[in-house]
Amino acid sequence: LDVAKTEETVLDLDLSSLTTPCLLLEEAKLHRNIDRLRTRLSSVGVQLRPHLKTVKSARIARLLISGETGPAAVSTLREAEYFSDCGIRDLLYAVALSVPKLERALALRARGVELSVVADNLEMARTIADRSRRVGCRIPVLIELDCDGRRGGIDPHDSDALLATARALSTGGAELRGVMVHAGQSYAARSIAEIEEIAELERRVAVQSAQTLRAAGLPCPLVSVGSTPTALFGRSFTGVTEVRAGVYAFFDLVMAGLKVCQASDIALSVLATVIDIKADERRAVIDAGWMSLSRDRGTAAQDVDCGYGIVCAPDGTVYPDLLVTEVNQEHGIIRPRPGSSARVDRLRVGDLVRILPNHACATASQHDCYHVLTGTPARVRSVWPRIRGW
Amino acid sequence: LDVAKTEETVLDLDLSSLTTPCLLLEEAKLHRNIDRLRTRLSSVGVQLRPHLKTVKSARIARLLISGETGPAAVSTLREAEYFSDCGIRDLLYAVALSVPKLERALALRARGVELSVVADNLEMARTIADRSRRVGCRIPVLIELDCDGRRGGIDPHDSDALLATARALSTGGAELRGVMVHAGQSYAARSIAEIEEIAELERRVAVQSAQTLRAAGLPCPLVSVGSTPTALFGRSFTGVTEVRAGVYAFFDLVMAGLKVCQASDIALSVLATVIDIKADERRAVIDAGWMSLSRDRGTAAQDVDCGYGIVCAPDGTVYPDLLVTEVNQEHGIIRPRPGSSARVDRLRVGDLVRILPNHACATASQHDCYHVLTGTPARVRSVWPRIRGW
Repeated sequence: LDVAKTEETVLDLDLSSLTTPCLLLEEAKLHRNIDRLRTRLSSVGVQLRPHLKTVKSARIARLLISGETGPAAVSTLREAEYFSDCGIRDLLYAVALSVPKLERALALRARGVELSVVADNLEMARTIADRSRRVGCRIPVLIELDCDGRRGGIDPHDSDALLATARALSTGGAELRGVMVHAGQSYAARSIAEIEEIAELERRVAVQSAQTLRAAGLPCPLVSVGSTPTALFGRSFTGVTEVRAGVYAFFDLVMAGLKVCQASDIALSVLATVIDIKADERRAVIDAGWMSLSRDRGTAAQDVDCGYGIVCAPDGTVYPDLLVTEVNQEHGIIRPRPGSSARVDRLRVGDLVRILPNHACATASQHDCYHVLTGTPARVRSVWPRIRGW
Repeated sequence: LDVAKTEETVLDLDLSSLTTPCLLLEEAKLHRNIDRLRTRLSSVGVQLRPHLKTVKSARIARLLISGETGPAAVSTLREAEYFSDCGIRDLLYAVALSVPKLERALALRARGVELSVVADNLEMARTIADRSRRVGCRIPVLIELDCDGRRGGIDPHDSDALLATARALSTGGAELRGVMVHAGQSYAARSIAEIEEIAELERRVAVQSAQTLRAAGLPCPLVSVGSTPTALFGRSFTGVTEVRAGVYAFFDLVMAGLKVCQASDIALSVLATVIDIKADERRAVIDAGWMSLSRDRGTAAQDVDCGYGIVCAPDGTVYPDLLVTEVNQEHGIIRPRPGSSARVDRLRVGDLVRILPNHACATASQHDCYHVLTGTPARVRSVWPRIRGW
């Protein structure tokens, strides 16, 4: 572990001192977003397992976890290695394991990391169990169920496949830890009512699969569900033991489009400089392109298409009708939303602007650190590094 | 400079030893692609200024440049700092400069780097000239012309604006080095004939602007044009002094869709592992999502939409009808192309696959190094690091 990568740098800078483009994080909004989900899940009495794939920062992860060492979820073994080195050791690697990754997972277990993994088919379950038995390490495994045909996972109607996979793990030499469901379709919901329905489907698939296992005499201590929309709007978590969510800490325009948050709740933005203005053609050019904003177009299918992001003033004031409509590698084009009366000539060459991201995970992944804004007026008080890679 | 970041690691590994997802680079194709453009531009007698924003690697940059120290173009000052530290010192920072970046550019000049920069409006030209005069460094500046309304640049029909900007530079204290044009619309061409027309427009805008400057008694030693399609298919470069291109070294599916190359010419791919197969639903799941493939959908508007990439066997055999159709952060879904008879059940859980990228710049930017494939059968013989950031 490169310890420098986990450390915080303390500063006191004005935004104008930063090199653009760069990633900004508003500390007050971050705390408010974290508190919102924590309060909600406390009130329904279910454990949160924050997904650290969004933040990829030990500094922020410590704000998200409820205990000293977790629990938390990760999307890569690189994250598992980094966070466990930073003391966050109760980890679920929430992507179906492949054979080459099994040895790295076992190496983490051998170092004392409380890592559990995911299997979603009989073949891989057998491989994990065989290898666990041979190395004398009963690695804990969750079985993934597919509630919407969007990713991997066992068909929840196929209880034979579920039981065969569970038995292969349990009797083969691994530890059957439970079941995991992720309602990815919640990101495409058209209303809060639909999110509630999807959350109930996610819960039901998980709880019924757990019951199927228990009825067959198999253990199922963990019943893990979650996505940011279903975590925030699920009406019941009966039978669920933990909820996973990641993007809730930052929020983004996709979540705002779902009405899960307001644009003003979004804690993350990209700071950019205006490098050209074509007032007669109603466009401005900024030094933030897809390299810093990402190519994510998650709002394209929503009622309000936000292009590659919504423009804000340096103080965070949202200009809802000024959008980044096109991106090159290091150039972005700002135009008024079609039909709006917004004007680019409120901007001047050299002005700073902030761009709200469509998808926080994607935009943050383009950057190596967060520039953390604190206080009013906001100052850059610290830099928090983040990791990448596999 | 972190010297480790410029160094090559020499190995001799089978693909199966790599952690997936990771970036592969076929050395023989890389050399062939580099030779193709070099041969073409030699035959028409024009200098190549390779754009290093695609490769972001000093190791590869040395294969691209024609002299010891360049010439080359970069898209960020971070690239300029890195490449000049590695000895590539004749650099054009080919994105319109902003005020906060002026000091870094001047600092590079002060260290002896032969850096030129770009201005595309009168206001910035004045600022650059003023600052140059005050620090006693006549920084060389190219004026960007906008040939297609897609990015920044002065309207080529507005010779008053061009001359005013040029005079502000030349008499104000900077060095007027020339003009720069980039035909970004070439990436959206529908035929080679259209690329030829766009190349001629790019050339004409550059050459006529140079003539406008010279007729007014202003210097214009550099007449810089280019994009990979126009560099490879422009019929005339009369009056042009240098051609910029970047993606030609790797190629990608967007370039193959333009018929600028064949899919088999693409030197870059992402290695992934199959983690689930749903043969009855005709889909496979791999451990490469948008984090490793990028969200680029550059082929979406082309005649043949390649989703998030085309699937290949580990030996590089292209399966033209197996596509990555959906991506999550760390999951990709492979499906047969609609209407094709391709089958996902040629794949097995645990199989390695290679995914050809839509856009080489975007996919490569998701990775910290290239795993270089050499020889037949291909072995991973070296790891070449690449940089990121601003």
